Amino acid sequence: MRKYLLPVLLICSLPASAQQLENDSLKLRQLATEVLTNSKAYEELRVLTQTVGGRLAGSPQMVKAEQWGAKTLKESGADTVYLQECKVPHWVRGAKEEVRIISRRRDFIPPLNVLALGNSVASAPGGITAPIIEIATFDELEAKKDKIKGKIVFYNHPFNPAFVRTFDSYAEAVRYRGQGASRAAKYGAVGIIIRSMTHGANNFPHTGAMAYNDSFPKIPAVAVGLQDADLLSSRLKGEPDLKLYLRTSCRMLPDTIGHNVIGEIRGTEHPEEIITVGGHLDSWDVNEGAHDDGTGCVQSIEVLRAFKALGIRPKRTIRIVLFANEENGSRGGKKYGELAKAAHEQHIFALESDAGGFTPRGFSFEMPPEKRAKIKSWAPLFLPYDIYEFDAVGGGVDVGELSAATGCPMGELFPDSQRYFDLHHAVNDVFAAVNKRELELGAFSLAALIYLVDEHGL
Amino acid sequence: MRKYLLPVLLICSLPASAQQLENDSLKLRQLATEVLTNSKAYEELRVLTQTVGGRLAGSPQMVKAEQWGAKTLKESGADTVYLQECKVPHWVRGAKEEVRIISRRRDFIPPLNVLALGNSVASAPGGITAPIIEIATFDELEAKKDKIKGKIVFYNHPFNPAFVRTFDSYAEAVRYRGQGASRAAKYGAVGIIIRSMTHGANNFPHTGAMAYNDSFPKIPAVAVGLQDADLLSSRLKGEPDLKLYLRTSCRMLPDTIGHNVIGEIRGTEHPEEIITVGGHLDSWDVNEGAHDDGTGCVQSIEVLRAFKALGIRPKRTIRIVLFANEENGSRGGKKYGELAKAAHEQHIFALESDAGGFTPRGFSFEMPPEKRAKIKSWAPLFLPYDIYEFDAVGGGVDVGELSAATGCPMGELFPDSQRYFDLHHAVNDVFAAVNKRELELGAFSLAALIYLVDEHGL
Repeated sequence: MRKYLLPVLLICSLPASAQQLENDSLKLRQLATEVLTNSKAYEELRVLTQTVGGRLAGSPQMVKAEQWGAKTLKESGADTVYLQECKVPHWVRGAKEEVRIISRRRDFIPPLNVLALGNSVASAPGGITAPIIEIATFDELEAKKDKIKGKIVFYNHPFNPAFVRTFDSYAEAVRYRGQGASRAAKYGAVGIIIRSMTHGANNFPHTGAMAYNDSFPKIPAVAVGLQDADLLSSRLKGEPDLKLYLRTSCRMLPDTIGHNVIGEIRGTEHPEEIITVGGHLDSWDVNEGAHDDGTGCVQSIEVLRAFKALGIRPKRTIRIVLFANEENGSRGGKKYGELAKAAHEQHIFALESDAGGFTPRGFSFEMPPEKRAKIKSWAPLFLPYDIYEFDAVGGGVDVGELSAATGCPMGELFPDSQRYFDLHHAVNDVFAAVNKRELELGAFSLAALIYLVDEHGL
Repeated sequence: MRKYLLPVLLICSLPASAQQLENDSLKLRQLATEVLTNSKAYEELRVLTQTVGGRLAGSPQMVKAEQWGAKTLKESGADTVYLQECKVPHWVRGAKEEVRIISRRRDFIPPLNVLALGNSVASAPGGITAPIIEIATFDELEAKKDKIKGKIVFYNHPFNPAFVRTFDSYAEAVRYRGQGASRAAKYGAVGIIIRSMTHGANNFPHTGAMAYNDSFPKIPAVAVGLQDADLLSSRLKGEPDLKLYLRTSCRMLPDTIGHNVIGEIRGTEHPEEIITVGGHLDSWDVNEGAHDDGTGCVQSIEVLRAFKALGIRPKRTIRIVLFANEENGSRGGKKYGELAKAAHEQHIFALESDAGGFTPRGFSFEMPPEKRAKIKSWAPLFLPYDIYEFDAVGGGVDVGELSAATGCPMGELFPDSQRYFDLHHAVNDVFAAVNKRELELGAFSLAALIYLVDEHGL
């Protein structure tokens, strides 16, 4: 309950002139005050999430979101705003999924709380009914490959709580969502149901992308909430011949048109050097797409607004990119990288925010050691803002496509990850789950790093 | 969305034997896994907050909470559980407060959303009606001291958003809650209404303790929600002769009996050396007292449970203390300090958790430099858990009383502070606002530091 003193700025550790250090330090403080006092990010997020809502690639909401993005970038002071066309997949969920336990006991069991995985096919029109086999890992699947035929595989792989950073739990579990259907179909499975990738204390199912291997039959795939996963597992122990009724009505329509929405401030000294900062504009269809990734979009736009408000005229060209279709195809990121390469653009740094609008702790980076060392030399400037992590490795999915195409150094904002998988790809990823100050401190972190890269190059 | 790598343990910077370092590092990992996997803290918090509820000193819920505390400490494996009696103030809110804007325009204005401040007196039985004077600071109060008489002073001091750590905003604003009534009464004010101490985007009023200076008349004091504070301020601009109707029905009854609830594990090698870890069991009456400070209580109890589960037999005596009456008197902390001094107990360290059950970032400390240096030498052991702050200055209110009485070195858990003042002392400080993993990582942080102090002394 007492007042905490801010850590003292470690001036001595910076290999830069005292004057430059003082200038940078003051500029960061101005950016923080501007963002924490006058940010429009929270209100913009409200409009995006609550008037546009969920905005899966190919949906009518995707088009509304693109219009919102272009308008907001213009109002925030971009010199130039343009759309970059790309083909996007057009998957639709169709009628509400239905999954029921069929027991010989004939007791009442409510339907399981499920969501089809993104890109899943429909089941047979009237649904399918099949015995279940519970599997914890792919090793177990291989060991039981002779028992899979004609069954629905229930991947009940737990989300490991012992990792401190929850993305480590996700990295371990997400393969069952991505590859589980085709690996089961290889042995004759007729459908899969997977335990949702979450620590959440509720029963919300968490959707997300899966992909088929064309060598095997395409079978329907759904995610189930944790409480229902536990129920199913427990029922199976007493009644191994339980069956599951499963019906999905999803369809993959022909590709359609989507757009990256881009706003620029042209550099005053080195306009040919481009710095990208962005998030993805699309989201899943079952929620408001707040933390994934409305927050990344409005934080990136806030960089522009804060620069304009403080009269910062960047030396290099700053490009705010709201990427299309990260969730089920990354076609926006791929197109951005492709066009950058074709035009021989000179990209010096790309930064993404796509890990939630939670209180920031730092950044992850993928770049050569000397560039990483240069960024790390700025770390003491961030300590007064409780931003301390500069050693993590990784870039974002969308800037990863740019980096793959052009070799551009990249990074991603690293917010606190404890709450992310409570709501990731589930119905509760909504505006009300975003804290205004946490969102703003993330926006400040992006603005501060972009400022320093622009000022000192990379 | 990519996997982040954990920062590498900075082994080289620790002035200790490689063997000891490895032991400590392994023990911390065991504690983290135990707490993140098997913690009972979240379920205990549910019981405390949802079956006992708000538990102001002197209330029937206080007695239930003491019984809950003693039972839970026993079940968690304490050798000895006992109650330490103290006198506590017995303030009751009485009938719902009422505050209305009285305008000559006679338009409909809903009653303002207010809460009486803790320890406030009642207004005259039928309420009072008086003109209002809006004041931003005590300097402004002094400058306008001739215009205060017969009026209700409206302290409309904003909660500064530019501070990064919100306790800094609180430290700046809280004096208006604590001293505002008597400083206004000195110049003849008949009541005060203060802007709530919050960044919150809602209209919840935030209560909290105030104190009277006996030299001046005791006048009623209430806090008002931000939206109603803005409404009142805006109406006053157009209509300076607006009046306010204010009615409070609070009463200060004679002191009653409360208890610190204490559970101990007796040390195996130096039982005379005592290490305290605790939170406060009381809360305000208007909410469930979840983050303030149910979380501190269950985190402290979790230290005991995790030690027992891992078979850790501490060398020194570990004492879990659930303090009485932090909120409106700190009588529990004072009694604990007083008795420790009288018994010549040897307290080597006292740690508190009373800044919310949010994702932890580190600790603040108040102790001589050489002890602080010793604790700081352990900082690299905490980095894999994203615990990095060891430089902040401060102890908790309750262990502060022990420290004042005995000179005991002290510290407080430093969780992320961004969400704390959204719910501090308001109706929304409820169990549902607590994240299980954030709570558990805080409990782990306490357990890890207590383990190291016990193992290596201080």
